[in-house]
Amino acid sequence: MSPATSATGAHTAALAAITGPEDLRRLPAEALPDLADQIRRFLVETVARTGGHLGPNLGAVELTIALHRVFDSARDALVFDTGHQTYVHKILTGRAEAFATLRQEGGLSGYPSRAESRHDLIENSHASTALSYADGLAKAAALRGPAGRRVVAVVGDGALTGGMSWEALNNLGAAPHRPVVVVLNDNGRSYSPTVGGIARHLAALRGGSGATTVFEGLGLAYLGPVDGHDTAAVEDALRAADALGRPVVVHCLTRKGRGYAPAEADDSDHMHAVGVIDPGTGRPVRPGGPTWTSVFGEEVTALGAERPDLVCVTGAMRLPAGLGPFAERFPDRVYDVGIAEQHAVTSAAGLALGGLHPVVAVYAAFLGRAVDQVLTDVALHRLPVTFVLDRAGITGPDGASHHGMWDASLLPVVPGLALAAPRDCARLRELLREAVGTADGPTALRYPKAAAGPDIPTVRRAGGCDVLREDPSARVLLVAVGPMAQPCLEAAADLAAGGVPTDVVDPRWCAPLPAGLCALAEGRDLVVAVEDTCTTGALGGRLAQALANRPRPPRVLTQALPPRFLAHASRDRLLAEAGLDAAGIARRVRRHLAA
Amino acid sequence: MSPATSATGAHTAALAAITGPEDLRRLPAEALPDLADQIRRFLVETVARTGGHLGPNLGAVELTIALHRVFDSARDALVFDTGHQTYVHKILTGRAEAFATLRQEGGLSGYPSRAESRHDLIENSHASTALSYADGLAKAAALRGPAGRRVVAVVGDGALTGGMSWEALNNLGAAPHRPVVVVLNDNGRSYSPTVGGIARHLAALRGGSGATTVFEGLGLAYLGPVDGHDTAAVEDALRAADALGRPVVVHCLTRKGRGYAPAEADDSDHMHAVGVIDPGTGRPVRPGGPTWTSVFGEEVTALGAERPDLVCVTGAMRLPAGLGPFAERFPDRVYDVGIAEQHAVTSAAGLALGGLHPVVAVYAAFLGRAVDQVLTDVALHRLPVTFVLDRAGITGPDGASHHGMWDASLLPVVPGLALAAPRDCARLRELLREAVGTADGPTALRYPKAAAGPDIPTVRRAGGCDVLREDPSARVLLVAVGPMAQPCLEAAADLAAGGVPTDVVDPRWCAPLPAGLCALAEGRDLVVAVEDTCTTGALGGRLAQALANRPRPPRVLTQALPPRFLAHASRDRLLAEAGLDAAGIARRVRRHLAA
Repeated sequence: MSPATSATGAHTAALAAITGPEDLRRLPAEALPDLADQIRRFLVETVARTGGHLGPNLGAVELTIALHRVFDSARDALVFDTGHQTYVHKILTGRAEAFATLRQEGGLSGYPSRAESRHDLIENSHASTALSYADGLAKAAALRGPAGRRVVAVVGDGALTGGMSWEALNNLGAAPHRPVVVVLNDNGRSYSPTVGGIARHLAALRGGSGATTVFEGLGLAYLGPVDGHDTAAVEDALRAADALGRPVVVHCLTRKGRGYAPAEADDSDHMHAVGVIDPGTGRPVRPGGPTWTSVFGEEVTALGAERPDLVCVTGAMRLPAGLGPFAERFPDRVYDVGIAEQHAVTSAAGLALGGLHPVVAVYAAFLGRAVDQVLTDVALHRLPVTFVLDRAGITGPDGASHHGMWDASLLPVVPGLALAAPRDCARLRELLREAVGTADGPTALRYPKAAAGPDIPTVRRAGGCDVLREDPSARVLLVAVGPMAQPCLEAAADLAAGGVPTDVVDPRWCAPLPAGLCALAEGRDLVVAVEDTCTTGALGGRLAQALANRPRPPRVLTQALPPRFLAHASRDRLLAEAGLDAAGIARRVRRHLAA
Repeated sequence: MSPATSATGAHTAALAAITGPEDLRRLPAEALPDLADQIRRFLVETVARTGGHLGPNLGAVELTIALHRVFDSARDALVFDTGHQTYVHKILTGRAEAFATLRQEGGLSGYPSRAESRHDLIENSHASTALSYADGLAKAAALRGPAGRRVVAVVGDGALTGGMSWEALNNLGAAPHRPVVVVLNDNGRSYSPTVGGIARHLAALRGGSGATTVFEGLGLAYLGPVDGHDTAAVEDALRAADALGRPVVVHCLTRKGRGYAPAEADDSDHMHAVGVIDPGTGRPVRPGGPTWTSVFGEEVTALGAERPDLVCVTGAMRLPAGLGPFAERFPDRVYDVGIAEQHAVTSAAGLALGGLHPVVAVYAAFLGRAVDQVLTDVALHRLPVTFVLDRAGITGPDGASHHGMWDASLLPVVPGLALAAPRDCARLRELLREAVGTADGPTALRYPKAAAGPDIPTVRRAGGCDVLREDPSARVLLVAVGPMAQPCLEAAADLAAGGVPTDVVDPRWCAPLPAGLCALAEGRDLVVAVEDTCTTGALGGRLAQALANRPRPPRVLTQALPPRFLAHASRDRLLAEAGLDAAGIARRVRRHLAA
């Protein structure tokens, strides 16, 4: 589908004529409002079909047009923070036609991608990194050139709640001889409204308060505020910033969801990220059933009613992390600390020291932001903090930076921390209760971004594990971690039908290893640990390590995700590619028994 | 030794009379200057014998006295950032007599310790955490009491270069109803002079500039600057801050090393941390020979002369991380980014994108601050960044928070990252060259805080590994990781003499596993991986995992550090306790062969 022949059939001629930023730079200023309209219609129409980050991109149309008219992304270093705001950049750099494939296997990435375009410098997606990249790029340009290369970073106001941004501003502000243009895309929100002192400070600046800005306090120049939906005004400000020849913040005011009525009207998150929607109404085409996230949300609210000492902490993810019901019922016991995982964890340590039991709800992929805090601030003090890791394992269309593939390798290293992976909703409720009932150290639960399947009954409990299928003659054991229970049971049924009786056990707590797991594994011909996580550091490896000092260790396979970054595709498809469906599991067992 | 009978025999009566903060609060103000003098003499005299953090504590004498006169650490929450500045707090809370045992096995910790005193709330030692703890403690106090509990956090100016502090200030500043007193102990330094925009901002405030402070910009009140060596002035400011009943920064100006001439005169780091010294001159009693750190410093400087694209990045650790010689020779190619590991890593990614090869020198224990950045910002982009992890493994007297026990478990999880552990100085030079010669992804080296031993020759190279000892009849293989080579060779000689021929191999690169290591291990009766790191995630586990899918996997033991936090003691002593000396290694082999 080319933009000019899109289904709406509307006036998209100007957009179709843009094959790259050079075309954009040749346009007269008076053509730009119409171009912006066309881009918005194109965004709504295409993202409605594929799903994606709609709201942020609707808000960044004029700002991105202005960026590409003032700077040259083929030569200058143009870095976007949280790359989901780069759809307009993609459209303007020759990728409009690929939007029909957005976030689908083999299709356009939902983030910048160096494989797609020379205009994409970093494949950035975690918040608050852009200013640090920019600092490094500016240092490199100063030392080695190329001469005249300009460094431009686009950051949201939400990203300023992350400490990395401040570490970078601290460095930028002390180097007046190394110019960097920081474009602050201030829409007052991350997912939720931006929190904290910086949000109030920006609000004061929006209101025209003339006080010294914190940016100036740190040594940067400040220009603004500018209407981020007035292309000419943004262009003027960017040229003025460039001319300053020093680090400068250009404060642009934008509205998330701008120009699309359903997004403007949605005050939960202005359609930050959507699935397939009806473009006319903005409503989901297939409303979802219960998810792991929604079950967690129910159960933590029930626990909150039982225990007045239970509090929740989120890093700007109150709704996506399932804390909506809890926040509604106990508004004074939920803390949104901003996109600030380090602070989320250590302030939770403080809450625990103060006699509370905090539940820190965070995406699994973002836990790497706070490993030291989990180790040194929580675990070293044996504090009762529960981490709830949503979007664990394969996440799907968000791709490499969002798959939660590392948490189950990182957390077992933390002394005294217990990590559970529920196999179904009943276990999610049960294990969450066990976790918040643990008073002498940290606990964690991980579950995927997916619909919740049917509950899977336990045959018997053995050594802390749930035996899910048992045959006295079975020489093969499948250790099914979390949501891998269902495909493991299907694989076991298939293997048994083919003459290979196979047991299935769910360890419930996957770190430390349950006391009885080694006993269930010993003496088998083959043990296969099946896990929706990276092979390195997975339970299979720890089980092999524990068994390898026995006189005759069994063969232990780890059937998990390959130790590399995986591109975007559907969750089912990526799991099948890694052999984590019933067919793949049975295939691996048969192959090894034959070897 | 009680203070009153100390070797100097000086007037220490006032100090001896302080058995706890109640005694201090009863003293008339005019007695305090003499008390401060006595504390300083006591610090110099005792730390000269034991080693420890001298400079920071000499600078915090009056400030700590004032804190304990205004607040009640038995009831109020008093939190010190980077707990090495708590010696005076320890003296004033009844622990003066224990200073003879400072940082020795079973003796007084060099950091706060809950086991030592109810006046120690957190065993904090990594920088920039105190404000986050304080935020959590203030939230807990507001929600659950006890009523009237005051929350006080003491932070250095250096800690403000860490993003966590800003994440916390952002939260504190938006909660005017939750009072927290932030005592900013501004001595202008971390180890080195504090860098960045915040350092310049504080300097302006020191000079009496009346501009709005960044703290006020974020919503906190600001009081100061106050002479931090004037106890009465600090007391007045603290009482005023307390009376405000809202979050407030009290800006206290101090001098590191204050009152001890050799420390005041030392402009490298004002005797930040010392070994055993002559208290009269401040000079080391036993000047050290070459260390792993100094060998790295030489080699990276040699590499810098060969390669103009080589640059170094440090988080406020230029000298302790061995970058002194490089910085002297190539001052424009070394970047001190502040105590900001997140920014250190991602700005290094930016440097690499700009065509340079950055070497990020950081303590192993602090790598947990930047796991996400190593994963997402560096490895996902396959950028050539080399991490040099000093103080890896057992560090010794700094205790639980400073042992580098986790890096060798965390880094193998990072796709495409290669991790090496040199066994001697020749290998450190060799592996560093291989690391900076790697153009298609990140590399890391780890080595301990220790004197460098003699070089250990290679018998032959096999499958990427160095065979160090080989006997055609050997059924036992020791996999010696890094500095464990020497005790492994001693153990092997001992075992061979006892009739158990034993081979020793150094894998050089311990992640990913060298191609030939499995071949060297297969078919053995026993393989023991010997490692100065945490058992969980160690090479032994990954080797067991790799071998466990063979038809007859060998027994693989991991002889490494136990998966728990280890207290302070000498490095040799802690290694021996973990069975990581020659005797322990031989014992483990004999026991398993007998089983």
